[in-house]
Amino acid sequence: MKKGVCIISGGLDSCVAAYDMKKNLGLDDLILITFNYGQKHKKEIGYAQQIAKTLNCPWELIDFVMPKEAFNKSSLTSETKEIPEGYYAEENMRSTVVPNRNTIMLSFAWAYACGINASVLGCGAHAGDHFIYPDCRPDYFHHLEKAFKLGTELCSHPDLYLYVPLLDMHKSEVVKKGIDLGVPFTKTWTCYKGLDIPCGKCGSCDERINAFDTLGLKDPVRYANGR
Amino acid sequence: MKKGVCIISGGLDSCVAAYDMKKNLGLDDLILITFNYGQKHKKEIGYAQQIAKTLNCPWELIDFVMPKEAFNKSSLTSETKEIPEGYYAEENMRSTVVPNRNTIMLSFAWAYACGINASVLGCGAHAGDHFIYPDCRPDYFHHLEKAFKLGTELCSHPDLYLYVPLLDMHKSEVVKKGIDLGVPFTKTWTCYKGLDIPCGKCGSCDERINAFDTLGLKDPVRYANGR
Repeated sequence: MKKGVCIISGGLDSCVAAYDMKKNLGLDDLILITFNYGQKHKKEIGYAQQIAKTLNCPWELIDFVMPKEAFNKSSLTSETKEIPEGYYAEENMRSTVVPNRNTIMLSFAWAYACGINASVLGCGAHAGDHFIYPDCRPDYFHHLEKAFKLGTELCSHPDLYLYVPLLDMHKSEVVKKGIDLGVPFTKTWTCYKGLDIPCGKCGSCDERINAFDTLGLKDPVRYANGR
Repeated sequence: MKKGVCIISGGLDSCVAAYDMKKNLGLDDLILITFNYGQKHKKEIGYAQQIAKTLNCPWELIDFVMPKEAFNKSSLTSETKEIPEGYYAEENMRSTVVPNRNTIMLSFAWAYACGINASVLGCGAHAGDHFIYPDCRPDYFHHLEKAFKLGTELCSHPDLYLYVPLLDMHKSEVVKKGIDLGVPFTKTWTCYKGLDIPCGKCGSCDERINAFDTLGLKDPVRYANGR
């Protein structure tokens, strides 16, 4: 019985990663995990649940509370900081970094993977994230996986590893892969602002729209600013 | 302003680590963090708070919920598993491992340290832990620290590092260091069972009592079995 776990946020990248794991890894079971950590774009959580339904996979929601000192440092979570607009890989987008958030999420998910004796843990980090999010870079994953493996060698599946299939792909390549895998893009939520429909202006929306553009396609999602 | 953070459980080792940080690192501020994750020996939390008072340090409690699949694997947390008795560094004590627990705790504490711009994060892992707890070994800390640093290079103090002062010490050396530092041993809680007074029989009690024995001393704490 080969089991896998994938972290999905409700966004496009992790949805593509989950579809890839489901279709390409020959798993008997794939469990999808989403985190609620006080993000402003909590809306993504409902999207994550929908994505799990389209894949017919069990879905788990894990709640955690970021230490408020870290929480208040990021515009993605702090009540008093605005989500920046503009190009995704730009200096000002760095205000969206939540200190050590990815490590906390991956640590919980690895614990879960140990608990069910899974042999793979996946996530959707991609090359477009590297500039603003150091916790999406290859070196970071390399050392974290090593620490995870060493720290749980007595209680994990002996083969358990981190699977980051989009790590070297730019956003347009991720979209292309998503098309090939039949990803339902309208069921994903990318916007950093938690409004009724995606804004089309924040760095996250902008990067996504540009990725479709690059492929000569139009993102099937409707944006508030008509993009 | 040089700030430090130390994880304390309420047990002897992390208390010695906190005393060491307070007395030897020349910090302007030392914040002590304790975790509530559903451990049976929740009693240790009150002890941690008392230790913070003896050091006149701010104390923070962070709650998190282990994924139940991981939680139920360990006798330290599962309702249906008994805490084993006997020698600490023995095969059967391995049932007390909570998968990836230390990584989750260290990840939260590192996030906290980033949030307050601390330059050091300490914990009390010691050499006696190495056999049963792989997430207390030098190699594990090495890679975890590397991943932490890489993952938070844009939002942490540039010098932030993991400080594990007891890493190469056996329990009796930890006790000796505690004596030198004036650690109030009666204000620490070591027992894995959450009873009124420590049992004196679980691996954790046994290791502690033996450490005092080795130094020709008697542990000032009173044990249920009269040891």
